Amino acid sequence: MSSKENGSGKRAPAAGSPRTPGRAHPVTLREVAEAAGVSTATVSLVVNKKKDARIAEETRQRVEDAIRTLGYRPNAMAKTLVSGTSRFIGLVADGVATTPFAGQIIHGAQDEAWKHGYALLIANTEGNGELEQDAIQMMLEYKVRGILYSTWFHRQTDIPAPLREADFVLVNCFSAEPGARAVVPDEIQGGRSATEILLRHGHHRIAFINATIPAPAKDGRLLGYREALEEAGIPFDPELVMEAYPDQEGGYRATGELLKHGATAVYCYNDRMAMGLYDGLREHGLSIPDDIAVVGFDNQEVIAAHLRPPLSTVALPHYELGVAGVRMLLGLDSPAEAVAKMHCPAVERTSVRAPAHA
Amino acid sequence: MSSKENGSGKRAPAAGSPRTPGRAHPVTLREVAEAAGVSTATVSLVVNKKKDARIAEETRQRVEDAIRTLGYRPNAMAKTLVSGTSRFIGLVADGVATTPFAGQIIHGAQDEAWKHGYALLIANTEGNGELEQDAIQMMLEYKVRGILYSTWFHRQTDIPAPLREADFVLVNCFSAEPGARAVVPDEIQGGRSATEILLRHGHHRIAFINATIPAPAKDGRLLGYREALEEAGIPFDPELVMEAYPDQEGGYRATGELLKHGATAVYCYNDRMAMGLYDGLREHGLSIPDDIAVVGFDNQEVIAAHLRPPLSTVALPHYELGVAGVRMLLGLDSPAEAVAKMHCPAVERTSVRAPAHA
Repeated sequence: MSSKENGSGKRAPAAGSPRTPGRAHPVTLREVAEAAGVSTATVSLVVNKKKDARIAEETRQRVEDAIRTLGYRPNAMAKTLVSGTSRFIGLVADGVATTPFAGQIIHGAQDEAWKHGYALLIANTEGNGELEQDAIQMMLEYKVRGILYSTWFHRQTDIPAPLREADFVLVNCFSAEPGARAVVPDEIQGGRSATEILLRHGHHRIAFINATIPAPAKDGRLLGYREALEEAGIPFDPELVMEAYPDQEGGYRATGELLKHGATAVYCYNDRMAMGLYDGLREHGLSIPDDIAVVGFDNQEVIAAHLRPPLSTVALPHYELGVAGVRMLLGLDSPAEAVAKMHCPAVERTSVRAPAHA
Repeated sequence: MSSKENGSGKRAPAAGSPRTPGRAHPVTLREVAEAAGVSTATVSLVVNKKKDARIAEETRQRVEDAIRTLGYRPNAMAKTLVSGTSRFIGLVADGVATTPFAGQIIHGAQDEAWKHGYALLIANTEGNGELEQDAIQMMLEYKVRGILYSTWFHRQTDIPAPLREADFVLVNCFSAEPGARAVVPDEIQGGRSATEILLRHGHHRIAFINATIPAPAKDGRLLGYREALEEAGIPFDPELVMEAYPDQEGGYRATGELLKHGATAVYCYNDRMAMGLYDGLREHGLSIPDDIAVVGFDNQEVIAAHLRPPLSTVALPHYELGVAGVRMLLGLDSPAEAVAKMHCPAVERTSVRAPAHA
């Protein structure tokens, strides 16, 4: 079905058949050499702009004409063989298909990599260990400058054995091994910022619906909540901290418990939970933000800005994690610690108002 | 900050300093040759398993030992220079960071590419034309086997000039040029399937909230709706078709108009609209599915399965588009038409029930 192999061994015309609008195959160094009537070695010297190579001006001109006429592109891989490393940075991601977070890490990493002349070689593993091993092997074979190993949610990770054969930086995850370089979100600061949104509006009885699942985010966001309360001189009340599964259904089911303790405001572990809680509060005839103020976490695309009312939240800095990972890998930033913590900015919308009695 | 350059020109020990847990640089062919006491040409012959090369068994053994000891990896790029194309397939995507759809195309394309020994070289452009040009140039320089050019929403596209230098397949988009190969979702069948969910439950007055924005999905989903009604012997009532901006706010604002025409069921152009409509119907004191049945389109992660009640919808086959794009590029599938249409499967949840009066 393709005109690529046409039996005669000759290249199909560039215009191609109606079924193959592209060229049949890329122009080779050999074709340039034949067109210019020189050796492939001479073409190579011209292409690689070897200044000390003794080539007659007339010959050089003939080669350059042939390159232009045929549309030859120098082979980036040939340069790699000379330099030992390619202009690739590998990026292993575990959830491109199932979460919007991995995509934002990719976006940030790619923007920063391109600034410095690198392209990303991305492998999406969706948590498949075998695929991950293969992907890292492939990156090593392509002589990547280094590898960013990223996870879609912030967690501790083991370092896969082949990863150690490259320069690497962990992105949105970290290792127990001292010195392993990583960039992660600052969960404690994020938790503090989420709570401070509510404090600024005059709330004092602020509930926190934390996740049931152990994670750095669970510990960090709770600690940030406690720090913000303490700084505001509000005693910590354990009754106001509850736990639920971190999705819409979890948030919905937490509604009853939340309403038992006289909270005027609630900070949810994530936006998905807040979305479910919205449904639960509505079923109790309660209005957001008039009866209760709600803050989320993640600033998740498709949800946070589009709830009714739009949700105040704290953004996870996925784009910035991607940027910082590349900068750390290339040695452009020199953070004091092996693990750099990225700021999680507050995003205020209309789900927060001062308490009714204030 | 890195131990990569250590001044002495010698390789840092593999264990590395605490700041650089990875190797400082990959082992080279030259290092293997030095360790084995042979020429680089000999190492190359052993690595490439040249059967006709005359190498003493003892020498071959020494080289293989050195390869094992040093952890040398053969360079995939060297093979590319010999064969003329690499084991890469390029994938240009325009919305990895902002939509979950591009990620699913990547996932499908990668799974299929790996099956056939190819790795994906992915560039995320977020709609930036300059970045797109650069990305395609880069892929050409790396001698990709071909390029998948994908868009996050189904639309007509121009073919960027450099794309014509490679074998290419358009994924989730198509060109007006005859013969340009493409894989797209079957919007008409999808619209028919969405409507049929409601017909099967006994609904006759089925509204359709279409998008305001021109798109193949807008035309196709309407046509499918009309075809399904016709097949069920239900006359088309233009009053039941309205338009709104295709997001939550658009769906919410369409509520009033929807309720004017006595519909017992509504099919929304996408799940985001359905999410906003849920809010609007609730504010009117209406219950889903008891008072009105709702069907969406997209089966969007994070939304469809997590609305209250969970939303019946039709899935966009992004994963399958990625798979089909690779198969078409590699000539594994030979569809009769240059543009292959992929099935959009119905996903039934609890937002649909028979009408109250039925």
